Amino acid sequence: MSKRIDFSNFIVFDGAMGTMLQTHGLKAGELPESYNILHPEIIEKIHGEYLDAGADVITTNTFGANRIKLSKYGYDIGEIVKSGVKIALKAAGKRLVALDIGPIGQLMKPYGTLSFSEAYELFREQVIAGADAGADLILIETMSDIYEMKAAILAAKENCNLPVVATMTFQQDKRTLTGTDPLTMVNVICGLGVNALGINCSLGPKEILPLIEEVLSCSKIPVIAQPNAGMPKIIDGKTVFNVEPDEFARYAKIMAEKGVTILGGCCGTNPEHIRALRHVLAGLEPIKRKVEPITAASSFSKTVIIGEGITVIGEKLNPTGRKHLKEALKSNDMEYVLRQALAQQDAGAHILNVNAGLPEIDEKAVMINIIRELQSTVSVPLQIDSTDSDVIEAAVRIYNGRPIINSVNGKLKVMEEIFPIAKKYGACVVGLTLDENGIPSKAKDRFKIAENIVKTASKYGIAKEDLIIDCLVIAASAQQDEVREIIKATRLVKERLGVKTILGVSNISFGLPNRTLLNRTFLALALEAGLDAPIIDPADEEVMGTINAFNVLWGYDKYANNYIAAYAPKDKKPAVKAFSATDVADI
Amino acid sequence: MSKRIDFSNFIVFDGAMGTMLQTHGLKAGELPESYNILHPEIIEKIHGEYLDAGADVITTNTFGANRIKLSKYGYDIGEIVKSGVKIALKAAGKRLVALDIGPIGQLMKPYGTLSFSEAYELFREQVIAGADAGADLILIETMSDIYEMKAAILAAKENCNLPVVATMTFQQDKRTLTGTDPLTMVNVICGLGVNALGINCSLGPKEILPLIEEVLSCSKIPVIAQPNAGMPKIIDGKTVFNVEPDEFARYAKIMAEKGVTILGGCCGTNPEHIRALRHVLAGLEPIKRKVEPITAASSFSKTVIIGEGITVIGEKLNPTGRKHLKEALKSNDMEYVLRQALAQQDAGAHILNVNAGLPEIDEKAVMINIIRELQSTVSVPLQIDSTDSDVIEAAVRIYNGRPIINSVNGKLKVMEEIFPIAKKYGACVVGLTLDENGIPSKAKDRFKIAENIVKTASKYGIAKEDLIIDCLVIAASAQQDEVREIIKATRLVKERLGVKTILGVSNISFGLPNRTLLNRTFLALALEAGLDAPIIDPADEEVMGTINAFNVLWGYDKYANNYIAAYAPKDKKPAVKAFSATDVADI
Ligand SMILES: [Zn+2]
Ligand SMILES: [Zn+2]
Ligand SMILES: [Zn+2]
Repeated sequence: MSKRIDFSNFIVFDGAMGTMLQTHGLKAGELPESYNILHPEIIEKIHGEYLDAGADVITTNTFGANRIKLSKYGYDIGEIVKSGVKIALKAAGKRLVALDIGPIGQLMKPYGTLSFSEAYELFREQVIAGADAGADLILIETMSDIYEMKAAILAAKENCNLPVVATMTFQQDKRTLTGTDPLTMVNVICGLGVNALGINCSLGPKEILPLIEEVLSCSKIPVIAQPNAGMPKIIDGKTVFNVEPDEFARYAKIMAEKGVTILGGCCGTNPEHIRALRHVLAGLEPIKRKVEPITAASSFSKTVIIGEGITVIGEKLNPTGRKHLKEALKSNDMEYVLRQALAQQDAGAHILNVNAGLPEIDEKAVMINIIRELQSTVSVPLQIDSTDSDVIEAAVRIYNGRPIINSVNGKLKVMEEIFPIAKKYGACVVGLTLDENGIPSKAKDRFKIAENIVKTASKYGIAKEDLIIDCLVIAASAQQDEVREIIKATRLVKERLGVKTILGVSNISFGLPNRTLLNRTFLALALEAGLDAPIIDPADEEVMGTINAFNVLWGYDKYANNYIAAYAPKDKKPAVKAFSATDVADI
Repeated sequence: MSKRIDFSNFIVFDGAMGTMLQTHGLKAGELPESYNILHPEIIEKIHGEYLDAGADVITTNTFGANRIKLSKYGYDIGEIVKSGVKIALKAAGKRLVALDIGPIGQLMKPYGTLSFSEAYELFREQVIAGADAGADLILIETMSDIYEMKAAILAAKENCNLPVVATMTFQQDKRTLTGTDPLTMVNVICGLGVNALGINCSLGPKEILPLIEEVLSCSKIPVIAQPNAGMPKIIDGKTVFNVEPDEFARYAKIMAEKGVTILGGCCGTNPEHIRALRHVLAGLEPIKRKVEPITAASSFSKTVIIGEGITVIGEKLNPTGRKHLKEALKSNDMEYVLRQALAQQDAGAHILNVNAGLPEIDEKAVMINIIRELQSTVSVPLQIDSTDSDVIEAAVRIYNGRPIINSVNGKLKVMEEIFPIAKKYGACVVGLTLDENGIPSKAKDRFKIAENIVKTASKYGIAKEDLIIDCLVIAASAQQDEVREIIKATRLVKERLGVKTILGVSNISFGLPNRTLLNRTFLALALEAGLDAPIIDPADEEVMGTINAFNVLWGYDKYANNYIAAYAPKDKKPAVKAFSATDVADI
């Protein structure tokens, strides 16, 4: 029986194991986890010192205990993990034991050879062994690659019921080694349903502080910080950490005052650091943070917040009506797909919609293939567009980031299929305002469907900020009278439901000449009504121009800096000489 | 003392004088008005017969009694008019005498030699003589030229206090000889503050009926019909009218049932027609018509209703920032001005804004010159743009139509100056949302000024449909945060005050590059918010394109017919194949 963990209170984790083992004789080239078998008394002693110092949670000596690493030393993962957990449980008594899971130690594809499913499998073995042995929670830590983190979290969530705490390690450029920034980390990890997240290792408490502040500003779940005892320095050939327990605790206090509730130490920390930390927390109460909800999609390296300015969603990776793309998908010509994707990104798309729905092809296989290729080439997040929930789940699962699912709609069956996927993988979901009776012609009826989608989503634990409503653009040539209703419905959804909005703009001009003119005009009307994310062709300069101009008019492009950069004659400075209000008033 | 006239009840006018005189011996070439001196007993007899038949009003034998006509015969206008009125008064007893004023009989400039002020002067003489002699009202009739009508009405209104009834004569093409349609007649004449208006002469009751229906549909004041006794036919060299009294009365009844309240006869009618007419009215009650208020500007031949689709107001006849026009105005190069005007009309302007405000020139003289030139060359109505009330009054007075005054604003002094002019000449007025404290930055405060303008206007008898509110476009480069407020204010004015809106769109982009892009985008936003009349450069195809597209999207361009005509490739039919809603719904 695992013990209940109270995440609403302060939780003190222990400090370093690796550097402690070095002081206990561990030599370079030795496997730290071998001590679970060879010197369990040393491990137990270290655990005991941390418990004495006031740790609520001790972390098993299993950081590198994955099959690939252990096999090099001839150890069995079950043996190492189980002994590690047993030692910790023996020491912990009523306190908690965290099964420690670190990175596998190999780069993932396409940079390395490790595939997402292989990584998942390696983590799964650790999770099962640790959970079987009786760990109380799982700590996935020191991750540099958010993709590997995703595999680990999925392995944890799918193979046991233990709470999961996830921490990544950042460089001084405020990114992880593979390029993830704090907001992106939070956006991806939060969605995957862990119990707490944060930052560990790499930096000292002073350097971690601004990163932790970023995390605090956007994480809806408890935040953990486990800094090193300063930045490592090499003195006389030895790695030295020189932040003393007092200073360490001083920063811990600052972090706690800002809202961190879970604190511990990483490399270079010892029981004295934890003791000092425990001491400063004694006089504090956990801060109840208020985090502004955001609607955001992330690639591994970039987060796009929908509602901050206009979010351009590239429409072109959709074979419907696109002969060349159709051929490319049929012949598996990924180069063509990538060229299209890069062109859209270069033209200003913030997110790319991806649709592989062709009757002649294996949509799931093609979609997975496209996602894999895209996520290693383009930096913008993806919106996965399919009517098949299997395709959606497969794509969302292997996507290296937090995607948008396009789409659910007001049909109960569709919501029952898609919402659990969205919830599990933490994806945003586009909700189309149609239901079993089709698309209503009136704005108020489209609004009602949107309302129902929001209500139903909340039953699945999906917050309204994770929904984006599409009031559905019908061709003006087909239903001229409905154009106003689309605009009106968008305004209603935005104003009354407070939900972000998306529209497939180009549909408006279907069947009419000079489509660009209708597209860009309709777009402007929709933007005024509150459209956040138009799905458009970013290569259409007139349509993109409308967005650039709107961003000036609506104050998103402050001082029109971007606009001027884009449009001012290149050979001379623009003559930005504003007239004063009195020129007009003087009448 | 003139008798009180009840315009809320039926009023029966008499029938023809001219054709009656012919049956009493008047020969071709004889001056009908000479009978006032030579055969007063015949005139009196005819009046008596009409009174016996049931006429409430008899019309003096002064149709052609203007100085130009009379001088050819050696008569004095005072003599003829006064004797005519005296004879009628003697016959009328308690019934009413209308001083009859017909056309002068010469074409006005630029088609003829008669100037507006000469026409005014001739009518003034008639009015003064007739009013002095004791006429009860003034009937200005059989006018073919709305410009001459305007001169006559102004002469009547400015030189006596008698009620004025004004009728024009139409051809079978539903226009007057100089090209005025019924709506335009109503829009111009109503504005000038007459008591009743309508149609007389030229056609028989059957042919007049559809014209009268058009007049009834738009006239806020009582409507009069005085048809001929049918269409004139030449039989044995004599002009014959062959609609018999019964048929004449049958049509009179139809007209009364549709809302005509003042009826009489013109050429070919005799006392029997009036008797029959009186008879059918006996069983009827006057109809209370409900006329939908419209906001409309007119040239002499064309009325533009603001609010029916988007009204494009051409901005280019304004020297501010336009070097060539400045030079043209200074050197009195009217050819340049006309070229600019025609180009704007050809490019799709519905109304032209005219501004002659240059410190170096005599604004009033130049403005009058421009108006004179424009109104004989372009067919679209004009918007007179000046900050000088003298210039405005001079221009509005000589304008051949119903102009828009640009502008009044929330300053009390300005409203006190401009509203009386607008009221007197029946012009629409643009109201700028600025006041003694300048232009407020917030939408709600601009709205308050608009509200005050509407309220103050009503004190001057100006209806809110005769106002057009301008919420004032400030350059985004100067006040980026106010752009939203302009849009918001426009929406408030439109929705809460129910007043039409106008905006000088191009101001938005002042000081920024790619002005067209900002202009056309801002325009789209404003149109969505309810802008009725953008002031723009109609030669800017991108900006005009926005209007064309908006008219499709907002359903003003039904089936996108105009749009397709404008933009479909010329060498092939457009492929207008609408997709059905189910294509989208099938998800
Ligand atoms: Zn560390
Ligand atoms: Zn263009
Ligand atoms: Zn007549």
